[in-house]
Amino acid sequence: MKVSELGEFGVIYRVLEAISRSRDPSRTSWQKLVVENGDDAAAWIVDSALELATTDTMVEGVHFVPGSFRWRELGWKALSINLSDIAAMGGIPTYAFLSLSMPGASEVKDILDLVEGMLDLASREGIAVVGGNMTSAPVLVVTVALMGRAEYGKLLLRSTAKPGDLVAVTGRLGASSAAVEMIKRRLALPSELQKALHVAHFHPEPRVAEGQAIVQCGVRCATDISDGLVGDLTHICQASQVGAFIGASDVPVHPAARDAFGEREALRFALVGGEDYELLFCGDADAIGQAKSRLSTPVTVIGRIVPEHEGRVAVYDDSGQELLLDSTGWNHFRK
Amino acid sequence: MKVSELGEFGVIYRVLEAISRSRDPSRTSWQKLVVENGDDAAAWIVDSALELATTDTMVEGVHFVPGSFRWRELGWKALSINLSDIAAMGGIPTYAFLSLSMPGASEVKDILDLVEGMLDLASREGIAVVGGNMTSAPVLVVTVALMGRAEYGKLLLRSTAKPGDLVAVTGRLGASSAAVEMIKRRLALPSELQKALHVAHFHPEPRVAEGQAIVQCGVRCATDISDGLVGDLTHICQASQVGAFIGASDVPVHPAARDAFGEREALRFALVGGEDYELLFCGDADAIGQAKSRLSTPVTVIGRIVPEHEGRVAVYDDSGQELLLDSTGWNHFRK
Repeated sequence: MKVSELGEFGVIYRVLEAISRSRDPSRTSWQKLVVENGDDAAAWIVDSALELATTDTMVEGVHFVPGSFRWRELGWKALSINLSDIAAMGGIPTYAFLSLSMPGASEVKDILDLVEGMLDLASREGIAVVGGNMTSAPVLVVTVALMGRAEYGKLLLRSTAKPGDLVAVTGRLGASSAAVEMIKRRLALPSELQKALHVAHFHPEPRVAEGQAIVQCGVRCATDISDGLVGDLTHICQASQVGAFIGASDVPVHPAARDAFGEREALRFALVGGEDYELLFCGDADAIGQAKSRLSTPVTVIGRIVPEHEGRVAVYDDSGQELLLDSTGWNHFRK
Repeated sequence: MKVSELGEFGVIYRVLEAISRSRDPSRTSWQKLVVENGDDAAAWIVDSALELATTDTMVEGVHFVPGSFRWRELGWKALSINLSDIAAMGGIPTYAFLSLSMPGASEVKDILDLVEGMLDLASREGIAVVGGNMTSAPVLVVTVALMGRAEYGKLLLRSTAKPGDLVAVTGRLGASSAAVEMIKRRLALPSELQKALHVAHFHPEPRVAEGQAIVQCGVRCATDISDGLVGDLTHICQASQVGAFIGASDVPVHPAARDAFGEREALRFALVGGEDYELLFCGDADAIGQAKSRLSTPVTVIGRIVPEHEGRVAVYDDSGQELLLDSTGWNHFRK
């Protein structure tokens, strides 16, 4: 069977099964492991605290198309998507590693611009870039590995949502996938709008301070929105063995996505588009209330965790009718 | 200018310059950093000990050619080359991350075999595979990031060679690049010989226990042989601001390389071939002597560190004549 037939998540599931069979509780590494595969980052005990680590890859032609971005933005984004994972654990980022595979015909200037973009964000966040490697490849592949620290017992996990919890998100959703659509359809939008979408997709702001702040507010469940709001909330529901519902009209749709594509399509981007890199989190009314008042970034309550429909997310419109979503294609999304 | 014109080390140098400019000693991450770019792994202080991390990538068509290896071996090697870096720091490996980019037409079975090969080695070494990611790409790209631990003050660095130190290596050299040559030239060697070379290249044994043992013997300077004996000793000389000489007849040439290619060519493989993943280390006669008697793996003294010829390695034959090496091509290697 081909990887394309089994699908990404199918292959990942089989890989995780193999890893699970290899577990060896007699070894120190496994004993000190607190969070393993299946959350935003791994976490293990080091003396009195937790060490975190995550890694993510961007591939030319898959995650970015040459000509549609500035190289500095690409470096920023490669680190940003990893920072978003550390943020979604409530951690403090520390050290980064950059692996670059690229054709010999790549321009040195472009590659150095990419590195500078990564360093812009690293410097701002106090991250030291301390290693990596460089090799030849037919297309550019950028892999960043990022370490972080967290206090013991103060982690944001996917597995800790409880029935009755409110579901909330930071920021506005849908602009990143609206940008992809704009590029794909070669839309000539007003330049302000074009810029807003471009920035959302290529220069996402990782919610590092927000992640640390919501931990202090008592929140213990979060992930970042990379696969799409519904998909990522489904991950939380599966890990926590609960269900969730979302009120479609409560979802904070990004105004640029709405202005460019209209209400209905923008809502689709917000629900299933992905790559928003906002935080999606669950907690009791008190914790969420504290988060709302403490963060300057907007926090919007969009739904609730329920005991039924384990592992499933339902989206309702204002008339109480469930929206039928299919994240695999626009055509299957219908009201 | 193209990357191919400036060359790998030229681009890396420019990247390291950029990183160096971004240093910020006011930030915690930089303050706790003990070893940064330019050694086998990075190291930083976590409470009373050191945390280590390294990453390395293998690309289809660059590091391996489909059809010439078993998938299980590829997974083993992807982890092994990273383990070799942790070993060359004297560290204990702890956690690994696997990033796989591959075409949709890849066979699921092959990918799972690759994972199993990695897990074989991980299990043996007590390493937990705790994260990673999977994405589509035109060719298979395997990136492993590996963490480790070490005692403070007990690291093997490249920068600590001192004039008068003996230079030693573990194991036998040259068989890995002899295997590459065998594959390239499609040589039909006796099957025993073919197998020995194949194993050296595709199933290298990382010298983890040896790295930890030589630290205990008082050795403080080491690297692993990935670029080739002369190249890697040059890295030590540059980092330590010393020179070195090697006695060509002292180099422990792998018998399979000698049997397959003859004395002279096998010596070239051993000197400039690379990918042996043996440890190359420097220390005073007492430390090296202890290492020789303590390790069951063969330890061979091959030369000496000298104060002159800073950053340069000279190889002498038995008549005292210097061998002129050029690691970039066979034709420029002459006696």
